Amino acid sequence: MSVTAAKGFTAAGITAGIKESGSPDLALVVNTGPRRSAAGVFTSNRVKAAPVLWSEQVLKSGEVTAVVLNSGGANACTGPKGFQDTHATAEKAADVLGTGAGEVAVCSTGLIGVLLPMDKLLPGVEAAAGQLSEHGGEKAAIAIKTTDTVHKTSVVTRDGWTVGGMAKGAGMLAPGLATMLVVITTDADLETEALDRALRAATRVTFDRVDSDGCMSTNDTVLLLSSGSSGVTPEYDAFAEAVRTVCDDLGQQLIRDAEGASKDIKVEVVNAATEDEAVQVGRTIARNNLLKCAIHGEDPNWGRVLSAIGTTDAAFEPDRLNVAINGVWVCKNGGVGEDRELVDMRYREVHIVADLAAGDATATIWTNDLTADYVHENSAYSS
Amino acid sequence: MSVTAAKGFTAAGITAGIKESGSPDLALVVNTGPRRSAAGVFTSNRVKAAPVLWSEQVLKSGEVTAVVLNSGGANACTGPKGFQDTHATAEKAADVLGTGAGEVAVCSTGLIGVLLPMDKLLPGVEAAAGQLSEHGGEKAAIAIKTTDTVHKTSVVTRDGWTVGGMAKGAGMLAPGLATMLVVITTDADLETEALDRALRAATRVTFDRVDSDGCMSTNDTVLLLSSGSSGVTPEYDAFAEAVRTVCDDLGQQLIRDAEGASKDIKVEVVNAATEDEAVQVGRTIARNNLLKCAIHGEDPNWGRVLSAIGTTDAAFEPDRLNVAINGVWVCKNGGVGEDRELVDMRYREVHIVADLAAGDATATIWTNDLTADYVHENSAYSS
Repeated sequence: MSVTAAKGFTAAGITAGIKESGSPDLALVVNTGPRRSAAGVFTSNRVKAAPVLWSEQVLKSGEVTAVVLNSGGANACTGPKGFQDTHATAEKAADVLGTGAGEVAVCSTGLIGVLLPMDKLLPGVEAAAGQLSEHGGEKAAIAIKTTDTVHKTSVVTRDGWTVGGMAKGAGMLAPGLATMLVVITTDADLETEALDRALRAATRVTFDRVDSDGCMSTNDTVLLLSSGSSGVTPEYDAFAEAVRTVCDDLGQQLIRDAEGASKDIKVEVVNAATEDEAVQVGRTIARNNLLKCAIHGEDPNWGRVLSAIGTTDAAFEPDRLNVAINGVWVCKNGGVGEDRELVDMRYREVHIVADLAAGDATATIWTNDLTADYVHENSAYSS
Repeated sequence: MSVTAAKGFTAAGITAGIKESGSPDLALVVNTGPRRSAAGVFTSNRVKAAPVLWSEQVLKSGEVTAVVLNSGGANACTGPKGFQDTHATAEKAADVLGTGAGEVAVCSTGLIGVLLPMDKLLPGVEAAAGQLSEHGGEKAAIAIKTTDTVHKTSVVTRDGWTVGGMAKGAGMLAPGLATMLVVITTDADLETEALDRALRAATRVTFDRVDSDGCMSTNDTVLLLSSGSSGVTPEYDAFAEAVRTVCDDLGQQLIRDAEGASKDIKVEVVNAATEDEAVQVGRTIARNNLLKCAIHGEDPNWGRVLSAIGTTDAAFEPDRLNVAINGVWVCKNGGVGEDRELVDMRYREVHIVADLAAGDATATIWTNDLTADYVHENSAYSS
């Protein structure tokens, strides 16, 4: 279903030949209207890929007719030629679709520092346009995969309107403002301002709290497009909840497919002085390589949780910290708590609760364990 | 040679039975004077082990007669009982040596969150005192090892005086103010103030710029003791240089023995606006798991260097960044530079230069690659 679950959208996913493997590598998503409102959030990495620089400009108008997405090359760190290539891609799609390049967003993912093979990409845009379909969402989701082992889609349907989307991402997964390539569509009839507000609210508590390996991409993009074709204008809160649900679902799918991971780790920080501090502490715990290795070894090593918390400037007293792993409070008041032998770590999901005893704010960060498979995959794959 | 290279010091290293393996696990270093000046720097982790809290107090007097060090247990996150144990250890050493507990520093390393076996440790202090020798430095260095594969010592001798030391450390290696357990001794005749100044100046540019895995310990301690027994008071600059040389040498030994590492990576940031920004950028590059995996795979993946730089708030323009790997400028002006095939990465040492083109400040951070062996070691070893 993916990006074509909502009415008013067509999509396609094809093999343009950008990837040497011959796997699908080019997707096209088109908003057939009547409305063409759009919002986007982008990586906060200061080294931004050409398609990010381009799409940021496109989104300023608040209208997007089409999104061209390619895997097989990030078009990042490619200089003026890279930007020209993104521009040419948008122009090509605009020509084929009979719109303006200023309404075509572009997303790229893959190896940094290599120019895209435009002799394959531009004909690919034309071929994809020829295959646009109201049932093309699945193929589009497949065409944007890189090291992903599965494609990721999500749909929620409410009273007369739908929000659906697709995502790719498996490594370099620590968004600062957004994450990976994500396109979400809706037929709810909403203006750009509402889309933007709902999208920012959703990404702040979903994609922004996914941190697989602490490495922030140059290409992270999340787009939300409205066709308005349901004719229904939902209450803002209901719409925001639907967008958040889709973002949360896609974020969870990203974590479950993270490179080499064998454990999904939910780091829940409670009783923090502020939500920002809860996020800071959660992220610091989630990025601690030693803890991530311990979890891989099914070792409820709460000492590594405490040593991570200790590097933050959040409000807490060391002798009031409590830590639970899978429901067992292995650390109480900064010292030994319940018997660590009671912790059952056989399952894929691991739940760490860090109680700062400093207030009533909370935040949850999702991460993975660190495995030899992650090392192998990222030693061999030049991305 | 180690801590007994300088005159006026004795040391011992014994097996007290703290480690289940039966390996040496208790060291004692004694300053026989005539001077007993001392300076120390400690972890900036806010979760500090009991021996760190104790030794910080001891060092406030500026005098240290003895240092008791144990491996086999960090005595961190052990609550009031842990602090009492450290106190009892210092009392025991003071009794045996005929001094006050307030002149006995204590250092511990090993598993966090477990109380030390005091029934073995206290008799061990007495046994170590019975074996104190002017040739005991080597044994002391061996007794403080945890996952270290080799013991680490360093000595420099100048005109009539000597600085020597020992260090342990292989993982959880990202000091904020100091690192690991390090004891440095000198027979140069200097007051506490000069020792403190020289030690802080040295650690700032040596141990503080070593970052193996981004994980800061709860127990990091570096002590510098002066016996004054050479009778020579060197010029401050000469002394500071000698201390820095020993710290630099020990820091390099720590990196070369880092857990599971197959590459030592020198990250040199040049043309930064300020030294602080150079350190920030260097540390961010050094902590990038994807880059560390790429280096392990001998892949000169400069895109990962740029994506790491982009997450910092240092002054730079993305299209003016340059990166060299082992002498080849693979990235110029933010884009593709010289042919990456020219980079020879067969050797253990890898040299990355990141040119921010934003000023004239520079800093060098040392790190390692990320390997499957690191994952294995830290999945199995509960520390």
